[in-house]
Amino acid sequence: MNPRFNVDARVNDFRALVQDELQAVEQFLQSCCRASGVSLIEEVWDHLLQAPGKRLRPMLSLLSARAHGRPGPHTVMGAAVVEMIHTATLIHDDVVDKARTRRGQASVNHRWHDGIALMMGDFLYSKCFQLFTAAGLGREMELLADTTNRMSIAEMMQFQFHAKLDMREDEYMLLIEEKTASLIGAACELGAILGGGADPGPVARYGRSAGMAFQITDDLFDYLGDEYVVGKPVGNDLRQGKVTLPLIAALRHAPEPERAQIEAAIQSGEIFGARWPSMREFVQEHGGVDYARARAEAFGRDARAALASLPPTPARDALEAAVDFILARVN
Amino acid sequence: MNPRFNVDARVNDFRALVQDELQAVEQFLQSCCRASGVSLIEEVWDHLLQAPGKRLRPMLSLLSARAHGRPGPHTVMGAAVVEMIHTATLIHDDVVDKARTRRGQASVNHRWHDGIALMMGDFLYSKCFQLFTAAGLGREMELLADTTNRMSIAEMMQFQFHAKLDMREDEYMLLIEEKTASLIGAACELGAILGGGADPGPVARYGRSAGMAFQITDDLFDYLGDEYVVGKPVGNDLRQGKVTLPLIAALRHAPEPERAQIEAAIQSGEIFGARWPSMREFVQEHGGVDYARARAEAFGRDARAALASLPPTPARDALEAAVDFILARVN
Repeated sequence: MNPRFNVDARVNDFRALVQDELQAVEQFLQSCCRASGVSLIEEVWDHLLQAPGKRLRPMLSLLSARAHGRPGPHTVMGAAVVEMIHTATLIHDDVVDKARTRRGQASVNHRWHDGIALMMGDFLYSKCFQLFTAAGLGREMELLADTTNRMSIAEMMQFQFHAKLDMREDEYMLLIEEKTASLIGAACELGAILGGGADPGPVARYGRSAGMAFQITDDLFDYLGDEYVVGKPVGNDLRQGKVTLPLIAALRHAPEPERAQIEAAIQSGEIFGARWPSMREFVQEHGGVDYARARAEAFGRDARAALASLPPTPARDALEAAVDFILARVN
Repeated sequence: MNPRFNVDARVNDFRALVQDELQAVEQFLQSCCRASGVSLIEEVWDHLLQAPGKRLRPMLSLLSARAHGRPGPHTVMGAAVVEMIHTATLIHDDVVDKARTRRGQASVNHRWHDGIALMMGDFLYSKCFQLFTAAGLGREMELLADTTNRMSIAEMMQFQFHAKLDMREDEYMLLIEEKTASLIGAACELGAILGGGADPGPVARYGRSAGMAFQITDDLFDYLGDEYVVGKPVGNDLRQGKVTLPLIAALRHAPEPERAQIEAAIQSGEIFGARWPSMREFVQEHGGVDYARARAEAFGRDARAALASLPPTPARDALEAAVDFILARVN
């Protein structure tokens, strides 16, 4: 049996627990951008809602709320706001990366133009802050402000690391912690707070570790063959100057003449296109793929371990299952 | 005597009252972006601080605080945050407009690139929200979130109005109210709140009216001859598809064959460049300049009138003088 189907079945399992709330999140998202009176905002928003993605962050937020007791009156809004923040970062990232597609359809910058993508992102960010402050969610607002600030710092860090072939593993880890793990951690922490949890620490740690596993897995796909359904063109990260863990590890282990050769081929750009399979081989041969996979799995174990102090509930089980999904996910 | 020198003298007069606090704002701005640990952020921020502009918004915020009593512990931070928000909008606007200069030096998008400008703007926005929430300023945070959301809605509105020659005056007024007047109004309201004012309503109204006067005056310069030191290339707004009050008024009053001719010349683009003086003549001849100036002055009177309920203080006088500065300002 194809292992992918197993994973998908488990996804549906742990999703089922918060199915109604996820639907409420979807309804919240449908209606939250209607009041602006500007039809262009609705048009862009409708376009975005047509390709919802997996809603991983709201799902983790809702499960975190459940793992801490009864979801409160703002649980659904909190989960929706996390997804809106995530969407805003995707829209802005696509401008930076000049991406033409996102979630299988035209990106906002491609369907309209950079300016509209930029301002739609700004609209979503400010809308989120407005929703939280209007609801009097001071502590949650602080978490959101800290998280978005950390993410923007990571984006600036990423520019600084552009095409930096001697990037160190600790630099990479810091980057993805701030860029990706911070929001997934915040999604869980927010859920716990809104779910009335006395100590959101464990799920926050869970979310950050799961986020690290998520990003390393994502970066791994760039170096995997097309027998995997990656959902994005392979080699794309490096072409955009993003040096990720599989390459960092391989460059560290490769013997000298080979290392210098591959660096030259990256710098000249000749490695992209027809010669990309030799790049993939280099990274696999020198343990880059295995190393990154092991690190992702270690973060997965950290994530599961962080849940140990929570009372055993179906929600806790679902959070555990989500780790397997993240490590095996196919897009 | 050159009237410009009179205005400048009065600027210095009303600036003098909050000179020390303005310097504290400058120090706050100098240090607020140091903690990120990302040198690129400091580099871009240093570049921005080298061309500070007139600091109109922090000045109005500080004067509003003074007009309401003793400035509180957060008055300086509030004024600085307003300037940071303003700076973030300028950086993002310059990306949208593909502007190469800002305040007499290279724009961030031109000096670096669009991506860095986009993310630096995101960093500043989130930094502001972080500063306010960390200080426990809930009400102020709500004002800031509402204002930035209104500004982003206005930016989307502006895309919708792109090159819309039949734009109505009420559409224009709504646009500039949301885009410009909202932040200047918020600067004043914030000052009043942080200055311990029981009713920030009057200075908020003052700020909004002053903001309308400010934007109409700004838009007017696009249609004034080069005997004025405009500080930006004339004809630029219309070239970017921005239809503003002087043109709206002139098109409304021009007789039919002439109106159709000028619209065709705008649509074909032939009006820009060497033929621009004929555009300027058209707008002046059909009362567009006089009308816009009268509207700006009317908003200036509204702004002064809004101050009437405040106790007479040097700060109130300074706010009044600021209106004259706004109406006569040269950049």
